[in-house]
Amino acid sequence: MTYCLGIITDTGFVMASDSRTNAGVDHISTYRKLFDFSKPGDRVILLCTAGNLSVTQGIVSELDRDIKSQEDVNLHSLPSMYEVARYIGTKLRKVQEIDEHWLKKDGIEPKCSMLLSGQIKEQEPCLFLIYSQGNFIHATKETPFLQIGETKYGKPILDRTLSFRTHLEAAAKCALLSIDSTMKSNISVGPPINLVLYEKDSLEIKNFLKLRLGDPYLAKIRKVWEECLKQGFNEIPDIDWQHRGSDFSEDVLID
Amino acid sequence: MTYCLGIITDTGFVMASDSRTNAGVDHISTYRKLFDFSKPGDRVILLCTAGNLSVTQGIVSELDRDIKSQEDVNLHSLPSMYEVARYIGTKLRKVQEIDEHWLKKDGIEPKCSMLLSGQIKEQEPCLFLIYSQGNFIHATKETPFLQIGETKYGKPILDRTLSFRTHLEAAAKCALLSIDSTMKSNISVGPPINLVLYEKDSLEIKNFLKLRLGDPYLAKIRKVWEECLKQGFNEIPDIDWQHRGSDFSEDVLID
Repeated sequence: MTYCLGIITDTGFVMASDSRTNAGVDHISTYRKLFDFSKPGDRVILLCTAGNLSVTQGIVSELDRDIKSQEDVNLHSLPSMYEVARYIGTKLRKVQEIDEHWLKKDGIEPKCSMLLSGQIKEQEPCLFLIYSQGNFIHATKETPFLQIGETKYGKPILDRTLSFRTHLEAAAKCALLSIDSTMKSNISVGPPINLVLYEKDSLEIKNFLKLRLGDPYLAKIRKVWEECLKQGFNEIPDIDWQHRGSDFSEDVLID
Repeated sequence: MTYCLGIITDTGFVMASDSRTNAGVDHISTYRKLFDFSKPGDRVILLCTAGNLSVTQGIVSELDRDIKSQEDVNLHSLPSMYEVARYIGTKLRKVQEIDEHWLKKDGIEPKCSMLLSGQIKEQEPCLFLIYSQGNFIHATKETPFLQIGETKYGKPILDRTLSFRTHLEAAAKCALLSIDSTMKSNISVGPPINLVLYEKDSLEIKNFLKLRLGDPYLAKIRKVWEECLKQGFNEIPDIDWQHRGSDFSEDVLID
């Protein structure tokens, strides 16, 4: 499995991913899932991938090849992030189609999904989720984050704390904690964590981080966070068990 | 969907459940999923249910009927919690078998699962998870909580804060927050929340709570908790973006 998320705010965006890939519990590997296709000064383009590894690697290879061979249509030539998303969706469909028949014959899912974030010069930053069918949605002010892969464990912390107005550094910490919570609760998601913070209109990636297993910063934030949660229980007012006037048997007992 | 959890500690146990049932998004109802079959002074028995509602209601009805008609084997006559779990597992298989053919014919899942907690006089308290196949496991000191239904959203908070030594009142708050987090992130889980705290060797239920939508206590703990999480971000040391010596392009960029 995989867990990747993107957060967009009024001052930029954050992208984060884990690096664990597994085909069953006895075949676990480490693969990067966060890719940078930026052209500094002109555009920033980041891609996170989840799903069938042969398919997602195929897509990334073709995207890269099209840039290097200077195809008419490539990630550096397209005029808007909308068209970039459309182009990647089309690539995804194409690569899936090549292998689909052979995979499904053996009960293997060719499905994958992607997060795409970026900014093209003189345009607004955008964040997209590209589905396995090649269609896509974008994040909005009301829903400023998108997730792919093993998304449930890490969602409550995002739901409780994020908005489009959240400070970008706080959003980056939130992304780290969301991934770290998922890693702790589900062994199919694992380190290293890749994290990128992009400041709107800078048109280059200045802030990135790769946190390996046992990284002291990761250990530190885990410790501080767990203490904070335990402290939270103390701050929550005690449960008033007399709150309900009725008898337990009247209310919860079957009769 | 449903979310129920049980926590066992060295001084007792906590059981909690939401009350939402849905058959698609346009058929949402409220049903109790926490049932009390205790015989005060002799034994405490609590059951939480998830899965196909007609099956779980059938099981609960049969368990109740067997007590009232004083069958030789019933929840009040069995000599140990292990045998209680075995008996409920057998009931589950029986009720599923009655409807299985007719449900599966129309693509409806007869699956269900249950949490069982209890204590019989002069024995130790126990917590079981009964699977849809009728087999079961019990919680241990190393794994002091069990969940059924929509379990992922509420798991990180349990993984980060609970142990067998956790104070029982703190465990109850943790259970509430685990359910509240799930309700906030997933509309298939909803109020009222039923919560029971059982003190070891008391052999009766003294502490229970039903929290309805808009309950001021629920609103209060949600507010305090969200403030605590935001505060937590401030306490986490700032990300040191210079932490990595390598160039981004060397490390994260495709090449």
